[in-house]
Amino acid sequence: MAVERYLHQQIPLSAAMGVRVRMATPERVQLAAPLAPNVNHQETVFGGSAAALATLSAWTLLHVRMARAQLRARLVIQRSAMEYERPIPGDFDAVCRFSDELAWERFRATLARRGRARLTLRACLIHDARRVATFEGDFVALG
Amino acid sequence: MAVERYLHQQIPLSAAMGVRVRMATPERVQLAAPLAPNVNHQETVFGGSAAALATLSAWTLLHVRMARAQLRARLVIQRSAMEYERPIPGDFDAVCRFSDELAWERFRATLARRGRARLTLRACLIHDARRVATFEGDFVALG
Repeated sequence: MAVERYLHQQIPLSAAMGVRVRMATPERVQLAAPLAPNVNHQETVFGGSAAALATLSAWTLLHVRMARAQLRARLVIQRSAMEYERPIPGDFDAVCRFSDELAWERFRATLARRGRARLTLRACLIHDARRVATFEGDFVALG
Repeated sequence: MAVERYLHQQIPLSAAMGVRVRMATPERVQLAAPLAPNVNHQETVFGGSAAALATLSAWTLLHVRMARAQLRARLVIQRSAMEYERPIPGDFDAVCRFSDELAWERFRATLARRGRARLTLRACLIHDARRVATFEGDFVALG
């Protein structure tokens, strides 16, 4: 898949983590990662891997959305927060959904007017059909 | 160094990230990571790598501190927050300091009494002698 190839080439840590792209649309990005390259000393997922996969899912959704809208801007993360709800003892997914078209239009308009706009995205991590962590990140686009 | 070998063996992502341990004492942990395995599409450090190195520095400090105190407990991260202050265009370090011995004694006493205790640690990321990001994480020890 083109998005997966792009991630592995441009962000080599995603290849080291074994990230696979299950879905990448402007409304939903779902990434998967195996336990083995992301494991910690307790045979669960290292918190840093969990944060990285969540960050990547949100970044990918914005990347896909900006590509569809033919927006050319540099995208940087400004702030993020993770809540680790339970240990993750196996393969895990990150799901980022976004369907607030009003917020998106505001983001586009602000970027066009000021050359800079911010958007907050949320993602969650899933293991065995259960939510195991949540992520929130503020991203800034610089035109 | 023993701590570096431990990290690479137990948390393989730290090896994939090229993490090196510059210092690991109960008062200060400093980890270094090169840009290449942690780069993003903009030739700066991927936010997920930044969060992972910061998380690892705080976790390592607690690990070293608990080993010195001969505390045997499972250590999990409960919550974390990152502020990305500026892009990181090269190799970077994570520094976690902790010298609040009063808080540490409270943590030890609570762990002994209740079999569970929480501690908040802060870390920062440094590039070119300048702070580029801050991290705060709540860790829970389960006896």
